[in-house]
Amino acid sequence: MENNERIEAALEAALAVQRDASGPPRLAAAMRDAVFPGGARIRPNLTLAVAQACGAEDLELAAGAAAAIELMHCASLVHDDLPCFDNALTRRGRPSVFAAHGERLAVLAGDALIVAAYQSLLAGGSAHPQRLAPLIQTISTGVAAPSGIIAGQAWECEPRVALTEYQRAKTGALFVAATVAGAQAAGVASDPWRSLGECLGEAYQVADDIRDVALDAEALGKPAGQDAALGRPSSAAELGLCGAIQLFDRLIAYASTAIPSCRGSAQLRTLVRLESKRLVPVSLTRKLAPSMARVAA
Amino acid sequence: MENNERIEAALEAALAVQRDASGPPRLAAAMRDAVFPGGARIRPNLTLAVAQACGAEDLELAAGAAAAIELMHCASLVHDDLPCFDNALTRRGRPSVFAAHGERLAVLAGDALIVAAYQSLLAGGSAHPQRLAPLIQTISTGVAAPSGIIAGQAWECEPRVALTEYQRAKTGALFVAATVAGAQAAGVASDPWRSLGECLGEAYQVADDIRDVALDAEALGKPAGQDAALGRPSSAAELGLCGAIQLFDRLIAYASTAIPSCRGSAQLRTLVRLESKRLVPVSLTRKLAPSMARVAA
Repeated sequence: MENNERIEAALEAALAVQRDASGPPRLAAAMRDAVFPGGARIRPNLTLAVAQACGAEDLELAAGAAAAIELMHCASLVHDDLPCFDNALTRRGRPSVFAAHGERLAVLAGDALIVAAYQSLLAGGSAHPQRLAPLIQTISTGVAAPSGIIAGQAWECEPRVALTEYQRAKTGALFVAATVAGAQAAGVASDPWRSLGECLGEAYQVADDIRDVALDAEALGKPAGQDAALGRPSSAAELGLCGAIQLFDRLIAYASTAIPSCRGSAQLRTLVRLESKRLVPVSLTRKLAPSMARVAA
Repeated sequence: MENNERIEAALEAALAVQRDASGPPRLAAAMRDAVFPGGARIRPNLTLAVAQACGAEDLELAAGAAAAIELMHCASLVHDDLPCFDNALTRRGRPSVFAAHGERLAVLAGDALIVAAYQSLLAGGSAHPQRLAPLIQTISTGVAAPSGIIAGQAWECEPRVALTEYQRAKTGALFVAATVAGAQAAGVASDPWRSLGECLGEAYQVADDIRDVALDAEALGKPAGQDAALGRPSSAAELGLCGAIQLFDRLIAYASTAIPSCRGSAQLRTLVRLESKRLVPVSLTRKLAPSMARVAA
């Protein structure tokens, strides 16, 4: 089975736990729309890739953890799109959950997806019960206050916030959870995997800032220009587009060197390089900053 | 230590995990206001009482599970009070979280409290790691779709709902989680404890319906008459006040007989009787239905 199939299967299984004929059908539909069809599934792919690079003997727990991280991500998107935050009518090129199902079901679907994340860990963890507590710890830390993605979103409600602090929590924290959880699911020491998650999380956020400025809504699948419209901190606004692209390339280079020595480090380096090209393609740089020469990671 | 102190200490510990100088201070304040000062803490008291009745050797895990259940309850109150649901400006006699901190922080505080619930289980579970998975299962089921409290709230978004189905999910599910988790935290068979939770959950919901009609906002600590104003199913509306009080008394009597035989069953029966008098006092019946003779449970 390919990793993408593993992820979709684990997500399907997680939603199936919360769906039967006795439950409210509109909530089930809203949850489904929050998860399928997905985006690039970049975080769960990272979890599985790290688990494989660490030589995981089976991938059931890694797939459960990967799905848990993606469900947390989907929950945060559903709540971020609410009228009181971004008031975003589209997401991944389709109506957002709140636009399609109303504000009340969007609040509840987000809540239920957070719980589904823990249920997904349980489902994958039966063969390795001793790995459950560290995984819960990792994923909870990546999501909660003081420095997970919920805290990241909450920084938007504060009068002052530093760009790095905001981005580390809003995006970086769940990337750290993704790499650390991959190692934990494989049963190996997880601390060496933090740096990779930090670099990739920061790179991803910078790429997101670049794309928010550079692409139109159709290419993004969600409203464009939101950072400026909502007064959000953005590296593209702070450094200019060329500066942001240079920062992105530097972060990807750091990420490559941050991969701990392990059985699958070469494949992981290839994955990071390919992913970086998908996030900020050279064609985009040519269009935005034709005089800029980019160094491949 | 008394059970009330155990619960407050476990709740303090759970919030402390998500609070430090690096996090957004307004989110921490909103979370705190959602949890302290508490209401009657009826669910966590039930969890601890069941664990004690089952002869739990130590109460650390039971306190962690009790706090987890209370945090889930607090999260649901914060989200239920949002403008898109009840638009409630007061709760427990003080401004609701959304009224005090705004809608955005109310959404995020509720999300963070759901995660805090799982962190609370972890903190209490270190001495009994094998009890962690069943407890996560129990608490998740009590909260999630298809039949937990989130599903209960989601029934309000459906065109048709049966009263029993709605109340079982909206209130009963977390009472079932409370009794079952008490037994699981004590390391004994938990299935016999489901009926007690079901009866008490239904009784509590009926009491809530009665109080919503019979008490004014000051005595309730939240807006009164909300069920009728929001068109919510209510046993007081369906059966009349006398009928609802009779149903309440019958449910309390069932609950007493549903207590499994165990070391502390006599104390637990006393607790149920005292709690029932607090929820629907005889003085209230005299005022509402002076001709009605109530049989003590």
